[in-house]
Amino acid sequence: MNFLEERILKDGIIKEGNVLKVDSFLNHQMDIDLFNEIGREFKKRFEGKEINKILTIEASGIGIACIAAQHFHVPVVFAKKSQSINLEGEMLVAEVESFTHKCKNNVIVAKKFLNPEDKVLIIDDFLANGCALQGLIQIVQSAGASVEGIGIVIEKGFQSGGRIIRNLGFQLESLAIIEKMNAADGSVVFREQ
Amino acid sequence: MNFLEERILKDGIIKEGNVLKVDSFLNHQMDIDLFNEIGREFKKRFEGKEINKILTIEASGIGIACIAAQHFHVPVVFAKKSQSINLEGEMLVAEVESFTHKCKNNVIVAKKFLNPEDKVLIIDDFLANGCALQGLIQIVQSAGASVEGIGIVIEKGFQSGGRIIRNLGFQLESLAIIEKMNAADGSVVFREQ
Repeated sequence: MNFLEERILKDGIIKEGNVLKVDSFLNHQMDIDLFNEIGREFKKRFEGKEINKILTIEASGIGIACIAAQHFHVPVVFAKKSQSINLEGEMLVAEVESFTHKCKNNVIVAKKFLNPEDKVLIIDDFLANGCALQGLIQIVQSAGASVEGIGIVIEKGFQSGGRIIRNLGFQLESLAIIEKMNAADGSVVFREQ
Repeated sequence: MNFLEERILKDGIIKEGNVLKVDSFLNHQMDIDLFNEIGREFKKRFEGKEINKILTIEASGIGIACIAAQHFHVPVVFAKKSQSINLEGEMLVAEVESFTHKCKNNVIVAKKFLNPEDKVLIIDDFLANGCALQGLIQIVQSAGASVEGIGIVIEKGFQSGGRIIRNLGFQLESLAIIEKMNAADGSVVFREQ
């Protein structure tokens, strides 16, 4: 069991409807020492890949991506979920569906921050049905850039996102993959990696 | 002129309506080395303060707060702008108005992440009319915790937020304070600090 799986067992809370609450250390309160361990592990798993930019999506991906970026020495771009008056110029847009919020959002990146020569590592906190992730992949590809890898903190292995993305040929590394979880007894089973 | 003022002059873009675009290094693409300089400077300005938690607000405050937190060795909590099904339990809520998005939002922090013994440093990227910041202060105080300081990256000194917050007695440190800017000739005048 790795450091993240141990932390999920210690501080994660399982709720009905396959909801895993990790808001005490990952996506509301954030444990920066843990984020550094996550960053180091991503660096190890993507060793040898030539990465010059990290792409993530607001809001809970940002902290992880920024801390991880210190291990890659690259800038981070975060995709926005709604049009702002401060966004202008050419935009790359993909439509994604949110499992958590049960709504559709546009995911937006200013075109000038993704170029054909960019070699991108995509980082996010959760992977479930993979809609947000497919939107990010679509945005990278529409810029003519390449997706060198995808780093996820927690994957819900019982949902289809991970399988779909791996079948498309991407190197997808999830630091913890949950095979099943049970709200009644609080148990979590991780996939062997 | 400090490192941040220099960077604003180099890469910031001034638009009509007192809009300063710093999206190439601060709030869309993020320069993590710059964020580390910002973190070091916050640490210096709040030297001697006993801080055990950093509070920020999604989305663009998160990256800065997480990198700065490494200089304080404390966890970060980010306030959320909309109710999510994953938020549950007792919430601290403040209503704030967004200058950028021209709408009202609820700013929300789970009560369990702010306790009466917390000594909080609030960090955000921009300060203009101060509505978001006053919402965060209100949330800290409603938890019975104390605001030890407020660290802002860029303050629009010609708007009222900074004056109001300083008049309330808070130690507010803005790393760059813009006195005026001119879209026609691209000039920026910073307040002497």
